[in-house]
Amino acid sequence: MAKAGRRPGQTETREQILAAARGLFAENGFDATTIRAIAAEAGVNAALIHHFFGSKDQVFVAALALPVNPADVIRQAVAGPREQVGERLTRFFLSVWGDDEARQPFLALLRSIASNENAARMMREFLLRTVVRPIAAEFGIGELAMTATSAHLVGIAMLRYVVRVEPIASASDDDVIATVAPVIQHYFD
Amino acid sequence: MAKAGRRPGQTETREQILAAARGLFAENGFDATTIRAIAAEAGVNAALIHHFFGSKDQVFVAALALPVNPADVIRQAVAGPREQVGERLTRFFLSVWGDDEARQPFLALLRSIASNENAARMMREFLLRTVVRPIAAEFGIGELAMTATSAHLVGIAMLRYVVRVEPIASASDDDVIATVAPVIQHYFD
Repeated sequence: MAKAGRRPGQTETREQILAAARGLFAENGFDATTIRAIAAEAGVNAALIHHFFGSKDQVFVAALALPVNPADVIRQAVAGPREQVGERLTRFFLSVWGDDEARQPFLALLRSIASNENAARMMREFLLRTVVRPIAAEFGIGELAMTATSAHLVGIAMLRYVVRVEPIASASDDDVIATVAPVIQHYFD
Repeated sequence: MAKAGRRPGQTETREQILAAARGLFAENGFDATTIRAIAAEAGVNAALIHHFFGSKDQVFVAALALPVNPADVIRQAVAGPREQVGERLTRFFLSVWGDDEARQPFLALLRSIASNENAARMMREFLLRTVVRPIAAEFGIGELAMTATSAHLVGIAMLRYVVRVEPIASASDDDVIATVAPVIQHYFD
């Protein structure tokens, strides 16, 4: 159902752009895909894409229907004392994965990454540019430590929400945070 | 090609047992599947299964063609000083995943776990009984901490070998161990 005030056709244009973006990201990866190329493929002006979505990161988030923008992850990381960054990241991560609606696109993503090299490459480049590099730089930690941090959180998601091994599957968010966050914090100390 | 000295038909019997085991593990999970039930399904004597494979864990490992037996993981964990258990587990885990041949069944497993609830349940029960509980008990740490340890290693596998995010994808085993092992060690301290 179109929202009031929207021009007719705007939703379709948006969908056209996202379909073009999905195709190009899958084919060429995140780095090699430009807003200009997406615009050409969708038959629209590049300015319209900026107007609808903002940056290339945001086009990617919308195209893959990710429930979280990396900008949000970074905001969580930096919003508060450094000695609690482990806790903030863990809490934020659990809150996203704990949400039934947000979890579905992540599960779909996990499946496609595990079975499809193009999907893996897209995410690889996207994660490096938009999460690993900026947070590592912000805190002055190595990018290897930052990928290890990400790995720990991804693994928590795998065992808690996908495999659902006990007791981590049924533990409260607070219990998981009390166990995991101080360990993750070591990557920032 | 049958090995010299093997009775004809032994390979087929073995395959029959594994096929029966795969079916029952997938249908009923790891816990509810007994050697007796597998024997009945395969039309063989339970003693023959013990003779071929040993324990139910080992039937499971063979049925899913896992390259690692949880008994090996436990052996690694306990073989040496407690203050280096993080390093031993990390090194062992990387050596298995770093092996091209061993990696394939793990990737297949990851895919099926992410897309199939029966596969997830099998692994969930198997991991809890054969890895999480025994190692947590051995070191007197909580099972939640032990699942978090496992989660960290699983996440490393995801980012290093599946998504292949840099720099963790190309880092040497020694560099990954130097970064990750001291952090994992905190779960045992």
